[in-house]
Amino acid sequence: MNGAEALAQGLRSAGLDTVFANPGTSEMHLVGALAAVPGMRLVPGLFEGVLSGAADGHARLTGRPAGLLLHLGPGLANATANLHNASRAGSPVVSIVGEHRSSLLPFDPPLASDIEAIARPYAGWIRRLERPEEAAEAARAAVAAALGTPARHAVLIVPADVAWGEAGLPDTGGGPLAPRVDPVPDARIELMADMLRTGGHAAALLLGGTLLDGRGSLLAGRIAAATGCRVLSETFPTAQRRGAGLPYLERLPYFPAEVLQTLDGVRSLVLAGAREPVAFFGYPGRPDRLVPEGCGVDRLCGPGEDGHAALEALAGLLGAGSADPVLLPEQRPLRPEGRLTVDAVGQAIGSLLPENAIVVDEAITSGAPCYRFTVQAPAHDWLSLTGGSLGFGLPAALGAAVAAPGRKVLALVGDGSALYTNQALWSLARTGADVVVVVFANRAYRILQLEYANMGLGSPAPAAQDLMRLDTPDLDFVSLARGFGILAARADEAGEFTRILERALAEPGPFLIETVV
Amino acid sequence: MNGAEALAQGLRSAGLDTVFANPGTSEMHLVGALAAVPGMRLVPGLFEGVLSGAADGHARLTGRPAGLLLHLGPGLANATANLHNASRAGSPVVSIVGEHRSSLLPFDPPLASDIEAIARPYAGWIRRLERPEEAAEAARAAVAAALGTPARHAVLIVPADVAWGEAGLPDTGGGPLAPRVDPVPDARIELMADMLRTGGHAAALLLGGTLLDGRGSLLAGRIAAATGCRVLSETFPTAQRRGAGLPYLERLPYFPAEVLQTLDGVRSLVLAGAREPVAFFGYPGRPDRLVPEGCGVDRLCGPGEDGHAALEALAGLLGAGSADPVLLPEQRPLRPEGRLTVDAVGQAIGSLLPENAIVVDEAITSGAPCYRFTVQAPAHDWLSLTGGSLGFGLPAALGAAVAAPGRKVLALVGDGSALYTNQALWSLARTGADVVVVVFANRAYRILQLEYANMGLGSPAPAAQDLMRLDTPDLDFVSLARGFGILAARADEAGEFTRILERALAEPGPFLIETVV
Repeated sequence: MNGAEALAQGLRSAGLDTVFANPGTSEMHLVGALAAVPGMRLVPGLFEGVLSGAADGHARLTGRPAGLLLHLGPGLANATANLHNASRAGSPVVSIVGEHRSSLLPFDPPLASDIEAIARPYAGWIRRLERPEEAAEAARAAVAAALGTPARHAVLIVPADVAWGEAGLPDTGGGPLAPRVDPVPDARIELMADMLRTGGHAAALLLGGTLLDGRGSLLAGRIAAATGCRVLSETFPTAQRRGAGLPYLERLPYFPAEVLQTLDGVRSLVLAGAREPVAFFGYPGRPDRLVPEGCGVDRLCGPGEDGHAALEALAGLLGAGSADPVLLPEQRPLRPEGRLTVDAVGQAIGSLLPENAIVVDEAITSGAPCYRFTVQAPAHDWLSLTGGSLGFGLPAALGAAVAAPGRKVLALVGDGSALYTNQALWSLARTGADVVVVVFANRAYRILQLEYANMGLGSPAPAAQDLMRLDTPDLDFVSLARGFGILAARADEAGEFTRILERALAEPGPFLIETVV
Repeated sequence: MNGAEALAQGLRSAGLDTVFANPGTSEMHLVGALAAVPGMRLVPGLFEGVLSGAADGHARLTGRPAGLLLHLGPGLANATANLHNASRAGSPVVSIVGEHRSSLLPFDPPLASDIEAIARPYAGWIRRLERPEEAAEAARAAVAAALGTPARHAVLIVPADVAWGEAGLPDTGGGPLAPRVDPVPDARIELMADMLRTGGHAAALLLGGTLLDGRGSLLAGRIAAATGCRVLSETFPTAQRRGAGLPYLERLPYFPAEVLQTLDGVRSLVLAGAREPVAFFGYPGRPDRLVPEGCGVDRLCGPGEDGHAALEALAGLLGAGSADPVLLPEQRPLRPEGRLTVDAVGQAIGSLLPENAIVVDEAITSGAPCYRFTVQAPAHDWLSLTGGSLGFGLPAALGAAVAAPGRKVLALVGDGSALYTNQALWSLARTGADVVVVVFANRAYRILQLEYANMGLGSPAPAAQDLMRLDTPDLDFVSLARGFGILAARADEAGEFTRILERALAEPGPFLIETVV
């Protein structure tokens, strides 16, 4: 077998079964080999940022890495912005990056680049293959590295001559690799128990990362029931299980003043998988750290640690193991009629969201009502933009749909954010992904219009305004979606939007709704 | 004045008058300042790869850097793939990259990243501003660095507190900066004269880089007339002046076997601004270096050197200063009728290309006939994909149109390549750019279908084929273009294509034609 075949079999044996791929000439042997491995799914994308966002979405739902097949340094560079988001989400990802054959590199051909340097900002593990014989072992090592503590992006650079060279008959067995976590030291758990026991209503548990799954939230709800502490969630959850049958978690807002208002009165903040609240951006004369003065901040657990076991132990120490958490009953908002506002879109979604749906939220300024109106919808998962790098929503919806067949995916995207990786629409069509896309077409980078004022800059000059407006000409998302082969419709009125959404949710396959809000 | 204002004025005083921009919250003061500088043009883009490709196109026509305004590390990362192409083209570019205020960075907010590390693979100069007082000087230094020897990508990282901080009244004068080149040593020119004098018909002058402008080509034509040497052009010219009234240059082909065939019989190859011919990709059992055995290779000049002066001196030494080069007379192909093939598209373009047009060629497998059928068209400039990183064509056409108002731009793009940075279509619409886009819709990554076979892999399995096909569903470029606010039409027949092209060339503003070939 050749190096590419050994690599492909090594990846598969380690449990990697999905590769989002955009190969070039230097990856042709890898394509041939990956296509030949039983149980390996190849998903094509027309731009590499689509692939990396999809891998992030896939990882958030499965806890396992998907692979990326990328063409040399520029292919990896195109994937980078969504690798930033994946890195902030703690998602495991394995990138297979082709490289020129070794003998060609000294001639510095046009597509040569320093792949390691391009990988470094967002890779926790990088290995360049030297010989085909090591390909199978290296593939397993890459998956193991991605599943390490903490989970990370692992990059395997594969020169073409390693891919086509003879690898012998390497051992490609060994069984799938599982995610790893380190235990949280008992002393730390005991300290946090003291904090929450003495803090009462002035203590708060801030959940984040993997602890926002149902299990973590229920444990936190028990602790709250036993101690009276508040339970909060981080602003941009990686994947939050929420809705009816789960405890209510107060979400930290985005703007600094609102975060401080939310945390007012908290004297002791315990971080469980979340980071200390800080400003997303700095503003002249306003604070960076968003914790009330005099409030203590302590960490129960962070990335790569077994937060679930720690929360369970914490609940035990607090006598909360059998406490009854307050669980939200199912309650849906009424179907909206009349003017189509972001609130109306939120109500419509809240009134219709299917059981066990997956919501991917990159709606930026338009997303808050959707989150609010689904708080008591049937239980679902909510994925958000962890790293702030735009272009996450559509790709992550693709990855979620590939990861969770049979579940409906709802992608909420701003018109600005959707454009960064709009090519994902074609991959949705190609794979028949069960995704309903709702585009909030406010014809602007609305967040920038708000932030320009927040910076104290007053009203922007026309040349500055031009950089924040998406009109002149208006984008037509229905036309764009059809260009990519997706059914689409536009809604201008709330009742109309609700009817279109209802139909889209009832039909399998992708559908895009442009809402002019 | 604040740091952002000092920076903006410094850039403008150094001669930078165009900034392709996609800012975020951390760049709001920069937006305000750049918008307020007289004579500074801000061009919005919906994805940063559009901006960097536009800056490359702009630089190729003006010889001067355009600016990029980018949002933190991920914004820079999105610009990277086209910075690869710009770097291979030797295009000067100045990136202004926002950064969080210094006091926020220790808290590692969600959008924090190692901007220097992201910049490093494609930056020849990087500077992080520490104080507002240095902003004006640093801006001029960045433009000077971009115009250095060789020209390069210069990156200025601007923390938000430097942008909004008080800069005092810095000196922002000093006048525009000019590109710099180093002289070529006389001894080298004399050696090359010997080579060409003794080589006769077995000698060849391979032109590349800036020497493919009309002046360089005419000098090479004189030398050929005096010595009998052959004159060739590199495979992917940065910006070639060509057509009627200029000498014919034989273009080196793309595939290795054809390059070797073209160079058959050459015993002495003199490189003038071009690099030694090497394979674009390696193939099992085939050579990397594409120079006939026994052929000597010598370099007259490379990037950052004054190749024009060197060619002039060379012509003088060879007594070619007043030789008459063979110049191509204008001759257009007939307007095609019948089946729409890539040849027919080439004929139509050759029959209609306006005087002094700018052609941007990213048509990959479909581009060769267009190049061939325009060889005797009225003089025009031909920009090609120097670095092989897809997504150059539409952005570069935007940059060319902004750089050269009054000239018609023709963008030739493959369906696959166009998709990488399709958002450029909106910027074309917003700016009313005088660009006709011809999309070759072969519904495939055709080059990969060829290369898979070239690698000796035979016929791809269905899962491998799936990665090379752009059908299922078909992309509809007319619909995509309309979604971005651009007029568009589809042509299925050669006469129809010719009529649509004729009308599109006659009207100002952007127009897209999808050719189903």
